[in-house]
Amino acid sequence: MDRLIDVIEATGNPSVVGLDPTVALLPPALTQEADHLPESEREAYLAKAYMRFNDAVITAVSGIVPAVKLQIAMYEALGIPGLQAFVDTAAAAQRAGLYVIGDIKRGDIGSTATAYASHLTSKSWHEDAVTVNPYLGTDGVMPFVTAAEQTDKDLFVLVRTSNPSSTEIQALETSDGTVADRVGHLVETWGESSRGQYGYSRVGAVVGATQPQVGARLRSAMPHTFFLVPGYGAQGGTARDLTGFFDRGGRGAIVNSSRGIIGAWKNDPRAQKITDADSALSLVGEAAAAAARSMATDIHSALKGAQ
Amino acid sequence: MDRLIDVIEATGNPSVVGLDPTVALLPPALTQEADHLPESEREAYLAKAYMRFNDAVITAVSGIVPAVKLQIAMYEALGIPGLQAFVDTAAAAQRAGLYVIGDIKRGDIGSTATAYASHLTSKSWHEDAVTVNPYLGTDGVMPFVTAAEQTDKDLFVLVRTSNPSSTEIQALETSDGTVADRVGHLVETWGESSRGQYGYSRVGAVVGATQPQVGARLRSAMPHTFFLVPGYGAQGGTARDLTGFFDRGGRGAIVNSSRGIIGAWKNDPRAQKITDADSALSLVGEAAAAAARSMATDIHSALKGAQ
Repeated sequence: MDRLIDVIEATGNPSVVGLDPTVALLPPALTQEADHLPESEREAYLAKAYMRFNDAVITAVSGIVPAVKLQIAMYEALGIPGLQAFVDTAAAAQRAGLYVIGDIKRGDIGSTATAYASHLTSKSWHEDAVTVNPYLGTDGVMPFVTAAEQTDKDLFVLVRTSNPSSTEIQALETSDGTVADRVGHLVETWGESSRGQYGYSRVGAVVGATQPQVGARLRSAMPHTFFLVPGYGAQGGTARDLTGFFDRGGRGAIVNSSRGIIGAWKNDPRAQKITDADSALSLVGEAAAAAARSMATDIHSALKGAQ
Repeated sequence: MDRLIDVIEATGNPSVVGLDPTVALLPPALTQEADHLPESEREAYLAKAYMRFNDAVITAVSGIVPAVKLQIAMYEALGIPGLQAFVDTAAAAQRAGLYVIGDIKRGDIGSTATAYASHLTSKSWHEDAVTVNPYLGTDGVMPFVTAAEQTDKDLFVLVRTSNPSSTEIQALETSDGTVADRVGHLVETWGESSRGQYGYSRVGAVVGATQPQVGARLRSAMPHTFFLVPGYGAQGGTARDLTGFFDRGGRGAIVNSSRGIIGAWKNDPRAQKITDADSALSLVGEAAAAAARSMATDIHSALKGAQ
């Protein structure tokens, strides 16, 4: 996880921008023709719009944030053209010096997990880390660990997610803690062979911002595991909720915000009056940069208050 | 699940062929140039080879089996050209009258799960059912259920997988059965609103062949849930192990075999002597058809023996 921690230190900002475009989050000037197109052309048209939108956000936030996270589902929803936009966005973000997390939540049995791990090993995908689902256990995760070690990359295993129904399975009590606790223990084990100079291994964990007490408990139970924390902002988590996810040195976690950054342009009064794509994209960038700076300040204040 | 059960009855064969190509499973005549190509061209070359291979298998097994299952990881490993081959294979299988299961094991929080559910709602993907990972709970699964109801399609939720480490999380004991038992209970609930004429809902379950006792217990605990059963053949499950996965009428499950069918050509003595692609593809088809028939006979005998 050293590469990620290094870029976090360089920007002084433990946050990641979620590049999760949807038609509702894009300025109408970029998407207005979509409804008049047949489905196959519609996908290619929207994929191009997503790409332009992402480019504007990437240019605006590079230097402010260390990383972006791409939720592949948003791209997969547009079929092959959408997946091409995923790849092109990831490549553009890497060129801009950003660490790219592919939020792919893949997970399958051994040989198949090896195929999925090509997200890390193949030059085609342009990801520095991916998220992985642990439901299949060690043999579904180790191929990703091996791939990460071979390529100087990382992975984040789902431990406790930010959604309301995360309790149904992840919070089930077993003889030795909850299911999430047990997964957390496995994550520490999976990372044992890849601890870096900051003490964190290549095997990180996804721990949602919406359960602060769970986050703090997992933090102390998983001292070598870096946390990727979704759920800040639109999903209800606040910066004060997040302090327990960090270690005493203010390291150990990176906080994701998607809608709060890429949809920030919607709260600008100018948004209503803009009708051309170029002006809309300028506003998107300007608002995203301001929101990213404001989020950094928010997290800093909370971490300072906690020390 | 009525459409799937209808095609199973029409072919009299509760088995599904896994179209999970790898370089090792393809005749060398189809892949021999791969090593001399740069990575980007290599992917497109192999994707085309996968497509030709799949076409041969589809032509050979249609009419013998009711369905195919495509493991998307194998295609994703070849980047965008691989995913195009996935889509083209699915479309070709549907045209051949086969029911197409996309083994995608997706799962994410609400809005993102809706994006993934485009595998069922979009015309671009050509899948009749998909597999879904339950780790995120109800709000990660319901978008797929809604999509399935809208489109007359189905889903299969991972309950107990066929791999050795499946015990680590899925077999953890809670106050009311194992984690897999709890997921099984959720699956029955998720399917309540979509039971069809055979009593099975649109929400099926993946239950691995490698744990026959677990399968039999889940069968009786999940009377309205159709099972997709991987792990037969190469992974060690035998037809005798499978009888407990079916209901008393011999319905309620479909058994997957991948390597045992698509790799059957390797056991033919002619395989060594063939050097041209067309002869290799003929042999692939011939061997796949024979293996699919033999698997059907194997399952029938076991089910008969159990009655």
